[in-house]
Parts: sequence; C-alpha cells; structure tokens
Amino acid sequence: MQPDIYDIFELFANNLADASGKILRDMFQNGAKTINVEQKADLSPVTAADRAVEQLLRQTIEQNFPTHGIVGEEFGNARETAEYKWVLDPIDGTKSFIAGYPIFTTIISLLHNDVPVLGIIDQPILRERWLGVAGKGTFYNGAQLPALKNHKTLAQANIATTSTPYFSADEAEFFKNLSAKSNSTILGGDAYAYAMLASGRIDAVIDSGMKPYDFCALAPIVAGVCGVITDFSGDPLTQHSNGKIIASANAGLHKEILKNVCALTKL
Amino acid sequence: MQPDIYDIFELFANNLADASGKILRDMFQNGAKTINVEQKADLSPVTAADRAVEQLLRQTIEQNFPTHGIVGEEFGNARETAEYKWVLDPIDGTKSFIAGYPIFTTIISLLHNDVPVLGIIDQPILRERWLGVAGKGTFYNGAQLPALKNHKTLAQANIATTSTPYFSADEAEFFKNLSAKSNSTILGGDAYAYAMLASGRIDAVIDSGMKPYDFCALAPIVAGVCGVITDFSGDPLTQHSNGKIIASANAGLHKEILKNVCALTKL
Repeated sequence: MQPDIYDIFELFANNLADASGKILRDMFQNGAKTINVEQKADLSPVTAADRAVEQLLRQTIEQNFPTHGIVGEEFGNARETAEYKWVLDPIDGTKSFIAGYPIFTTIISLLHNDVPVLGIIDQPILRERWLGVAGKGTFYNGAQLPALKNHKTLAQANIATTSTPYFSADEAEFFKNLSAKSNSTILGGDAYAYAMLASGRIDAVIDSGMKPYDFCALAPIVAGVCGVITDFSGDPLTQHSNGKIIASANAGLHKEILKNVCALTKL
Repeated sequence: MQPDIYDIFELFANNLADASGKILRDMFQNGAKTINVEQKADLSPVTAADRAVEQLLRQTIEQNFPTHGIVGEEFGNARETAEYKWVLDPIDGTKSFIAGYPIFTTIISLLHNDVPVLGIIDQPILRERWLGVAGKGTFYNGAQLPALKNHKTLAQANIATTSTPYFSADEAEFFKNLSAKSNSTILGGDAYAYAMLASGRIDAVIDSGMKPYDFCALAPIVAGVCGVITDFSGDPLTQHSNGKIIASANAGLHKEILKNVCALTKL
C-alpha cells in the first residue's frame, strides 16, 4: 500500500460522489415529476436516477482505472478478480428518495483484495459526506471525526435497522428481543444510520439481507471512528460477507449484541 | 368565521413555528452533546428540546390569546372547552431527532370547536414548512401547492407508515395485506410523510395510535391539496378522533384502503 496511491483514490472517490450528487440533487428536487419508478424483479423500487448515476460512475472508473473491477447495484460486476474494485450504490435508500425523505445516500467504496479500504456515504441534498479510509480515519465534509467515546450498554443504546421488512422469522425474533432490551429503536435510514453512528448519534445498527454495495463502504467509516462492524458471527466484512451486519459504537456493546445473536442458534 | 381573524392566526402560527425552529436547529446541530434523552412512562424518548419548545410556545399563546385553549404533548391541556385551541407537538418524530435524521418536525394546529382549521408541519433543518388553512389551501414555504392530480390505485401507490411498532396484531395484519397490494411501502417519517403526500411524493399514509397533537395539523394540510384524510371508519378528523388515520392523495385510493380496513372487522 503506497500512501500516494491512496491519496489519488481518495480524490477520485470524492469526484465520483460530487458527480453523483449533482445528478441526484436535480432529480430529487424535480420530485415526482421526473422520478420514473419501475418494478424490479425483487419488487424494490428503482429509478431512472439510479441507473443514470451508476452509468456515469462506471464510465468514469473505466476511463481512469481500466484495470480496476466494478461491483454495481444496477449493472452487475466487471473484472471480479481485480486487485482493486469499486463498489457502487448510486441511491441507497431508494424508498426514501422516492418518498422525498432526504436521507437516501450514494455509497461508494474501494476494495483491496476484496477488503473494503475506503468508503463514502454521501447525502447530496443536505450536502453531507462521510469518508472513511483504512488507517487514516473518518472525515465528515473534510474534517476528521473524533474517535467515539461511547460507553453505552445495550440498555442505554439507541439502535436502528432498516431491515425489518426483510428479516427472516428468526431474525425478526432476535431483533424484537434486542429492541426490547435497548433504550430506543428507530426504523429506516439505510446507510444514513451508519453515518449517524459515525457522528455519535446512533449507538448500534443491525441489518440483514444487505448486498456488498450496501455494506462495503460502511466498514472503513465505522472503523475510522473506532466503532466496531462485523457480520452476525463477529467476523470482519469483506465483499463476500453474507449481508448480516452489526455496527456498534463500542466493543462492549458489540459483544452484548453478538451474544443476543448467539442465543438464536438458527441465525 | 371572520377572514381577518384567520389572517392573524396564520401569522401567529408562523411565528410560533419560527420560534420553535430556532431552538430546534441549535439543539439538533449540537447533536449528541446537548440532547438529554430521558425515558418517559411509555418508553418513547423525550428530550430537553421537546420541553423547552413547548414551554415557549405555550407562554406565547397565553400572552397573545389568553382565552384560547392549549393541547400539548409534554404539558397537557388547558381550557379544554375553549372555542379556539392550539395543539402543539414540539418535536414530532423524536426518534428521528435523536438519531440525527432531519425529518422530525414541529406540528402546530388550531382547532375551532374541536375541528382542525389550520395546520403547520415545520422542518427546521431543511427549512421546509407546510401550512394548511381550511377554505384557503396548503402552502409550502409560502407558495400555494397545486391540488394533487393523482389517479393512482393501491397497486400503483407508494404508501407509508410510522406505526408498525405500535400496531395491534389486527392492524399489523391489515397493514401487511395493504402493503402487499401496494407498489411500495416506506417505514418511518411521522408527520413528514403527510407533508410528502401534500407535495405529491407519497400516495397514502396509514397510522395508528396517534394523538391529537400528532394528527390535528395534518387535516387542513392534506385537505388543502384536495387529498382525503379520515379515521379508519372514513369519518373526518376532530380533536376526539381515535388516532387511527388514513390519508390518501385521491378519493378512489382512499376508498380502496378503507375497503381493506373493513375486511378486518376487529379494527
């Protein structure tokens, strides 16, 4: 790992997010008039904006780093075995985008040998950007975020999930128990919930059914403020993680949540 | 009803929302540092901000309209039998406020003989305000919103609810069926979902367990863009409605949703 290469990657990732934000701001503010909601096979809504942004980002990557791989939500994967891969979710929280809630985000991450080393969560309406770089930290609109000084237990914690409609019966049972033991639970937020964890507003986020373009960017952002993010087994995230994600503001809280997962052996 | 009195009420309501927004912006942006989350008896989070705003608004009402009644979330009711009553929810969507999602709102409404005749939904971070006045229409940041031209059926509709954690078993079953028949469902948003309905972004919102300070303001705002808002029986809202609320962007969609309610006789 050469630091100067990472500086270039960081600049490039910021440029990708700038380009994405410009398109999404226009489309979001034009609102219902231009958003063309379709039905995907999995019934999740997908918009013209989603595709327009991913196409632009992919072209930009191809032009600048033709050997790098790409993992995208809308147009699949390219160069799967590349050392460096860009992982793109043009609109995370499509339902929020459609409904007009400005907490959807663009998620961009860079993998080195399948491990996330850089992540961006960008909210273009509020003009908020979280950037995490492995070994360097997490930055909010360019300013380094302090390491979380959060000692909350589960009973004190405000937890979040977007996944309740996607939970299996066992996962729903696990989350219901967890929620009952926590201080407060908020539903919805998608990647924005993890950004709020990095900014010290939420204490833990639990999700299931996530795809690499949903979760890869979260790892450097959460790790960069000394939070903990793993799968339900406590293993660190790679591109090939199973999409069951726990992020916590401190290691004790993380352990407590993992213990609750283990109580349900089917998970 | 004298129109000039209503102009004064409208100006006054806007002033209340301005005052509330000023406090909430400061507190929200100071984030976790100043938000003092407590546990209320019903386990919903309540913050110092909530109380600070309601106290200020109540004082301002007492000073300007000492004969008017007040219905507030945090400090109860005053002059219950007054002809005019102000209904206040300083922070609707307290969980969003705590989590750092800028879709919490201040809700203010005016009742005339228990019927909502004026409503405000104010989002102070995005500086968005919806004002509905009976017989006059709904205004977004001062500009009149056009009547909704929405012909969507349930199968085409994007529906929303914040209430899933509060639904009874029968209500949960009803909403699950409704959601399966709709195009897309978004969870969360509180009053902001109804604002998005007025702005043409969401097609229907269904909630249960709402209190007068949650739902009164919604009625003039939804009606002012020719949307429909009733309880689960199809009756118009008053202060004494039972908190089971359906709002729809068109009468056909509303009828379709009501038919689904009726299919569950226990509701």
